[in-house]
Formats: sequence, C-alpha cells, structure tokens
Amino acid sequence: AAKLGAVGLPQPPNIVLMLMDDMGWGDLGVNGEPSRETPNLDRMAAEGMLFPSFYSANPLCSPSRAALLTGRLPIRNGFYTTNAHARNGYTPQDMVGGIPASERLLPQLLKEASYATKIVGKWHLGHQPLFHPLKHGFDEWFGSPNCHFGPYDNKAKPNIPVFRDWEMVGRFYEEFPINLKTGEANLTQIYLQEALDFIKRQQSQQRPFFLYWAIDATHAPVYASRPFLGTSRRGRYGDAVREVDDSVGQILQLLRGLHIAESTFVFFTSDNGAALVSAPQQAGSNGPFLCGKQTTFEGGVREPAIAWWPGHVPMGQVSHQVGSLMDLFTTSLSLAGLQPPGDREIDGLDLVPVLLQGQLIDRPIFHYRGNELMAATVGQYKAHFWTWTNSWEEFKKGINFCPGQNVSGVTTHTQQEHTSLPLLFHLGRDPGERYPLRFDSAEYEAALQRISPAVQQHQDGLVPGQPQLNVCNPAVMNWAPPGCERLGKCLPVPESAPEKCSWPH
Amino acid sequence: AAKLGAVGLPQPPNIVLMLMDDMGWGDLGVNGEPSRETPNLDRMAAEGMLFPSFYSANPLCSPSRAALLTGRLPIRNGFYTTNAHARNGYTPQDMVGGIPASERLLPQLLKEASYATKIVGKWHLGHQPLFHPLKHGFDEWFGSPNCHFGPYDNKAKPNIPVFRDWEMVGRFYEEFPINLKTGEANLTQIYLQEALDFIKRQQSQQRPFFLYWAIDATHAPVYASRPFLGTSRRGRYGDAVREVDDSVGQILQLLRGLHIAESTFVFFTSDNGAALVSAPQQAGSNGPFLCGKQTTFEGGVREPAIAWWPGHVPMGQVSHQVGSLMDLFTTSLSLAGLQPPGDREIDGLDLVPVLLQGQLIDRPIFHYRGNELMAATVGQYKAHFWTWTNSWEEFKKGINFCPGQNVSGVTTHTQQEHTSLPLLFHLGRDPGERYPLRFDSAEYEAALQRISPAVQQHQDGLVPGQPQLNVCNPAVMNWAPPGCERLGKCLPVPESAPEKCSWPH
Ligand SMILES: [Ca+2]
Ligand SMILES: [Ca+2]
Repeated sequence: AAKLGAVGLPQPPNIVLMLMDDMGWGDLGVNGEPSRETPNLDRMAAEGMLFPSFYSANPLCSPSRAALLTGRLPIRNGFYTTNAHARNGYTPQDMVGGIPASERLLPQLLKEASYATKIVGKWHLGHQPLFHPLKHGFDEWFGSPNCHFGPYDNKAKPNIPVFRDWEMVGRFYEEFPINLKTGEANLTQIYLQEALDFIKRQQSQQRPFFLYWAIDATHAPVYASRPFLGTSRRGRYGDAVREVDDSVGQILQLLRGLHIAESTFVFFTSDNGAALVSAPQQAGSNGPFLCGKQTTFEGGVREPAIAWWPGHVPMGQVSHQVGSLMDLFTTSLSLAGLQPPGDREIDGLDLVPVLLQGQLIDRPIFHYRGNELMAATVGQYKAHFWTWTNSWEEFKKGINFCPGQNVSGVTTHTQQEHTSLPLLFHLGRDPGERYPLRFDSAEYEAALQRISPAVQQHQDGLVPGQPQLNVCNPAVMNWAPPGCERLGKCLPVPESAPEKCSWPH
Repeated sequence: AAKLGAVGLPQPPNIVLMLMDDMGWGDLGVNGEPSRETPNLDRMAAEGMLFPSFYSANPLCSPSRAALLTGRLPIRNGFYTTNAHARNGYTPQDMVGGIPASERLLPQLLKEASYATKIVGKWHLGHQPLFHPLKHGFDEWFGSPNCHFGPYDNKAKPNIPVFRDWEMVGRFYEEFPINLKTGEANLTQIYLQEALDFIKRQQSQQRPFFLYWAIDATHAPVYASRPFLGTSRRGRYGDAVREVDDSVGQILQLLRGLHIAESTFVFFTSDNGAALVSAPQQAGSNGPFLCGKQTTFEGGVREPAIAWWPGHVPMGQVSHQVGSLMDLFTTSLSLAGLQPPGDREIDGLDLVPVLLQGQLIDRPIFHYRGNELMAATVGQYKAHFWTWTNSWEEFKKGINFCPGQNVSGVTTHTQQEHTSLPLLFHLGRDPGERYPLRFDSAEYEAALQRISPAVQQHQDGLVPGQPQLNVCNPAVMNWAPPGCERLGKCLPVPESAPEKCSWPH
C-alpha cells in the first residue's frame, strides 16, 4: 500500500491479466516472429516492459492456470497426478478433481480490497459445481470450464458448455459454433465484448476491477472470426493471433479512452509454450527455444510477457527478471495493497520493485512435470534433473513435441534421471538448450553450487498437495449443468464409473 | 535520378552499407534475441524499415560479398567452384582466383556519379595484386583481404596482412593483435574510427560518399575490445555483438550530428547466416530458422536487414519484400541516379519503390551452393531441388551445421536430388522448414506452378562465369605484399605449386 501511495493513486489500480492459451514466446513480432503481425502487442511492449525470461508454472493448461490463480506450484495446490511418474495431467471433462476449497484464489483475495472480479474464457480448474469460478472469488464469468475440443455426439460425451455466471448458456459447436473445416468462430469477438463491457461497467461504478481474460483462440482447434480468416501470412494460427492482437489493442484503447490507462495494470502472457505437436497449421512458435508444450524445455515453459501501466511502469523497458506466472498472484495482491496468505507457501514473487524501479530479484524457478521436479533455473543457468519429451510408444504414433529438433541425450524418449549429475545449460549463450556444460568444467561446478542449495531448500520444505488429477468419471461431465433446463439441453447422466485417469504424456 | 528529385536532395545521398560477418538473423533484439543487447540496431529499425525476409546471395563469405558488389549471383561472377558438386568455396589465402576484371563493381560505378568510396574491413574478393580493392573502384581501404584466422607461423603460412590503401600496415596477431584466449582485439574500434573519419572528411568536402563497412568481429574467432569483454549475457559472441551495436550507434549519431542523416542512406545486414558449427561460444543465432552458414536452409541465408534514411524511408516500417544482398547494388545505383550495367545479367532489384513507397515486388530468389541451384523462393514458398548439410565424413568428425536440429529427409548428409519433385515449404506457416507440403496437395501443385517457370527462365538464360575458386597455390599467399619492405616484414615466397583447391563443404 505504501507503494501505491508512492504512485499517487486514489485507490488501488485495476488489474487485467490477459492469459493466452498455448501461445508461444515466438509468436509476437516484438519477439521476432518473422511475419510481424502483432502491432498492438508490439506497441504494448513499446509502452511498457517486456520480459524475455518469463516462465509458466507448468507446461500444460490446467496446472499452469491453477498456479497463476493461487500463486503456488501445482505440486502444492494439487494440480498434478500420481498415476504415472512425470506425466502431465489436466482437467478434461471427465476429471473428478479441481481446485481444492482450501486454496485461496487471487479473485477471492482481491475482493477483500473491494475489487469487482470477472473471468472471461477458459477456467480449467475443475467443472463440478464445487469448483465453479463464482465459488472461488469471481463475481462474473463468461466462458467454458474446459477446452473447446469437439464436436462430441452428446452421447459418449457432451459438448462443452459455455457459462454466463452460474448457468450454461449454450455449448460449443451448438449455440457457439466452431467450424473445424474453415476455422471460423466468433468466440474471440464475444470474449472481447465481455471484456469491454465489464471494464465500462466497473469504470462507471468507480470500483477497482480485476479482469482475468483467459481466451483460447490459439489453442487447437485454432479459430478466428470471418474478418480475420485468411488475413495472416502464417495461416490459420496466424489468423487467430491477429484477432487476439486486435482485441488486445481494443482493450488498451478503451482504457485510454476512459482515461483509466494510468490506473490499470495490464499483463499479457500465455499459459504454456506453443503446442508444436499441432504444427504447422494449429500451433505457434517458440522462437529459438527447444521443444514445446508438455515439456519442461524452454519451448514448453518460456512465455511471451508484457507489463503495461502507463505512467508507472516505464516505457520501452526490457526486464531480465526471471519471472513466473505465479508472480502475477503476488504482484496483483501487492498492487491492491494486500499481503499474500501467510499460512501457506507462496511461490510467486512481488514484482512491483521490478516493474516500478527496475530491480532484479535473484530467485529460482522450478520446472515440474506432474509429480516430478524436472528442472530448475537460477540466473542464466538451468539444470535438468530429468529429461523426457514423450514415450517411444507415443512418438512412434507420430506425436512429436520437438518436431525438427533433436538434442542427443536431452530430447529423450525415455525418462532419464540426471539428479546426481544434472545437465546444465547457460541460457544466455545457449537459449536453445543444445550444449550442456561440460561436467568437468569450473563453470559447471560453480553453477551447480548455486542451483543445488536452492533445489535442496525447495524440496526440504515441500508438502505436496492432495493430487487432484488422478480420478476420472464419465458421470462428472457436464451432461446437465445449471441452466440446461431453461435451454432444453439437459442430457441424461450416466452411471458413476470412477477410474484412474490415463495420462500418456 | 527522377526519384532523387522527388526526395528533394541537392545531390545523390551518401550510401553506407554495413555488412556484418556471420551475424545471424536472430542476433538482433528487434528480431527476438532474448538477451536484447542491440539497442542501437533496434533504434535503427524503429527509425527505419526492417526486412524480415532479406537474403544473402550465398551461405558463405566470399561469394556473398562478390554478389553484393556486382549485383550478380556468384554463379555469374565466378565466385564458385567446379571442383566438387554443390560445395562452397571462398578465398582463403592460397586462393589463386578473385574478382574478374570484367566484373563492374558498385564502387566503380558510383565513381561515375562522383562518389568518394571506401571499404573498411574484410574484402575477401581475392588477394593477389590484380584483385586489390583500389583496382576495383575503392578510393580507400583499411582492412584485410582474408578472414582473421590465425595465428600462423609465417613459414607454412603467413599471418593475414592488414592494408591501408595500397600497402600492408601490419598483420593480424602481430601489429593487430587478437587474443584467442581472452577474445580481446581492438579491431572493431579501429574500423569504427576509420568509418567516422571517412564520413567527417567527405562531409567537409561536400562530396557524396560510399562507405562499405565490412567488419568481422562476429566471425570466428570472435573478438571485442576490453570495455565490451564480459559485458554480454550471451558470452564472447555477445560481447562482439554489443561492440558492433555500439559502433553502429556511433556512426548513426555522427550522421545526425553532422546533419547529414537525411542525405545518407544506411543499410545494415550480414553476409550469411550464423555459423552454428562454431556454437555456442563463437557463433550467433538464426532465430527460428533451420541450420546455419554453409547451408541453403533459411538459417544459412536469411539475414538481419534494416534500411535507415530519416525523412525518406518512413519510420517504424516492416517490409515483407523478399530482398537480396544483390539488391543493394542496384538500389545504390538507383539512389545515385545511375543505371546498372546493361551488358550483363543483374540479379539485384531496385528497392527504391519498396523503401520510399512501400511497394512489394514479386521476384524469385535463387539459393546456390557452389555450382548448384539448391533452392528457390517465390513469395512465401521455397522449393528445395537439392538437400544437403554436410557429408557423413565431416559430420562424424563433429562438424555440424544444424546442431540440435534434424528434419527427416531435409537435413540430409548425402546430396539428395529433388529436382523432379521438389520439397516445398510455406515460410509463413513454417519458417523453420520442418513440414514439407504434401506432394498430393492442391497447395503443392499451385506453388510449384508458380516456382517452376521462374526457375526455368533463370536456368535457360544462365551463362555461368569462369569459376574462380578452383585453383590454390601457396605462392599467392601474402608473403611479401606492397609495404612489407618499409615494415621489414617481407617473407620469402615459396615455389609456385598450383593445385586443385579442396572444398569439404
Ligand atoms: Ca494451454
Ligand atoms: Ca561470413
């Protein structure tokens, strides 16, 4: 709160977190995408602070989002599985688990400082009624509990519902069409309108607001609305990016137009790296980095990241702060004059000194995959304790998380343990993780002596949360969510048949 | 000349071509280098026009430079070898050949418009007296005829001389030290001073000038002066880039300070892709592109490129013109009000309409390696007629042009012919050349129908020049170049022993 006094605001700033889905580090013009189709994001960076070393908390949607909203690693908040070692779990529509009631989410906490809170887009923290975002601190929701996969037959599986607040207002591929053949869908326009409307409403009520804008056009199946389809040099994925970029521009322009740009902190990032497994039509770019979504190589976890707060965050800055999605939790609380909960471990840092004074805070980043600490980054050094892309079985089916890339002993298809002699990379000289440091070098020794105690300390204090992603059950799918009766879209609920979820990756 | 009238200059603009050595597309902050250490180049791009799709004329130094200065492909100007199919040749110090007297070089032609001309840095178009840059249109030279490899023992091979104009003024590793252990050398500072001095002198004489600033700090062995050593997040290569960037900033600042920024056209680019074979300590980054120097994949031939001409080239533009190093020949002539020679094929385009009016000109790019047309680009499509990285023999020795990268059937270690069914890539969706189009797709058919006639036309009209890079002879090395007597540094010239040059790559 002292910090806020210093920036001279009558009340805490509004907070807008723009979280993209599977967008890659290399998808932004400002990060070197050759077709340069993100003028609004590039302008946002030019007006704000770019973070080239900003990390997701997990290489997959659900755990990453749970970490963002709790400020805690998935291993703590339960967004992992013990069904198989080092495998990624998420919340498909038959997932029984979700965000535990014991977790305290960012919107819940912000309400203590009188914020109006809204989520637009993908929730992905569980879809059973107890996990509903309005039970976890959001005042409003427009969006879906799961990914927009489909269409389903509404027999073996229902189509994914779209909610307005407590009730379903339709389903993907039905009331909210996505044309898989042409890639046409109006969803980004709808999500944009939801954002603009919310901002205008709150502004007129003079309340600080928190908007979590979690749109998903860049997650396969990628989509764009008709005015954007076919306009990109990059194909359909690029069309989606262009529409996202245009929408970001419209939101920032509204903030300027309402004269609340200087009282609104905006952060743009993504939940995990580009899903190269869906390339080239349905995936983005991780720039010079290794592999993609699902992996703990840089391509899976390094994210595009821009902070924007005119008059406060200085213009045109690049911060080499090693940042994390979880920092947005702690930073948002700090901006609101709040402390993070004191009764639990919080992994997110308060980046306010980084944003306002250009400070650099030394801190480790822990890269988990499922229940295993795969890697850790300290400064410019990254240590891999385990390497794995996917299994030979999956790889032989054509599922490739590192297409065109192959680093011997690194992009392995068996789970290789290196805990006694980690593979170390210097991410400045070798951002592509191609050249492990020599084990017998002084540099290796020195780097490991910096990393090892940080890892030891982390692991000593770690109390894993109850794993949420172990049990699946067709009965928990959204056959008949609230609101279905009014729409006449209730489907019969099958018998309960809980089983262990299967996680191939 | 009409165009110049249109921009209202009393005389043709000064021309500064800044040609880097082995710098990669991905080495610029503006192209997404994560450490973001090129503030001056990034500012140059923000004040000028960035070309994300600008190509070298060859993936190796000498042929690329010969093409730049003649506006002609190496296959025409003789900078290739017939000693072995599709292998790269250059001008090491025992090379007999060089730039043919019949070629008309950019500085020769610019002298017709009264330009004062200077080359600073690496010439690399032959080092026998008849190839001397002052015999090919340059008024002044400070630099070396060959790469700064060494040190040599002055017995089997002499150290490479450094020339001022007609005479040697010392040798690398002797009067011009390069510390291979620490990476320290003052050469970039010397080359910078040469540039600044030349600009100031010409300005005071009110003559238009042409400065070809061909510095080589980013070619292995990479070097930097003491103030820059150890300052980069990227290691020694990054130190070199930082010094280059600082020097570019100083040159542009001098132009502003002398009030001739608006009458000076500056273009920054590189001669070939980053030499990944020397990574990670001695090589840069090709960003998201495939492989590096020596290859005709994008990493070997796509270059960083920025045009800067305040008041004429509009600020902050990105041009998707498919450009070539050879265009700088034709464009420079156009800026000087001159026509390219009419008695020979010129491959370079006049980019003035691109620069001043934002036009886009449809044109093919032909990617040669030695005597073979390996690939061609038309619009966003690239066809590979031959694929090859290097031989299995070389690869097994640890020489790798595509470290960490492996695209099945593309990054081959045998010379694979695809002339009857070329591999096609869409560089917008797939800039990394990972996903060849399906041969049976309509898109493949349509793209090939665009590329094939362009290739046919090119090959029908092609008259290869006399190959210059076939014969090597230890007697032609710079044992006793002009100026050696004054320095007391003449070495005995061995017997003439011409032999076929060996080109492993
Ligand atoms: Ca995702
Ligand atoms: Ca070169």
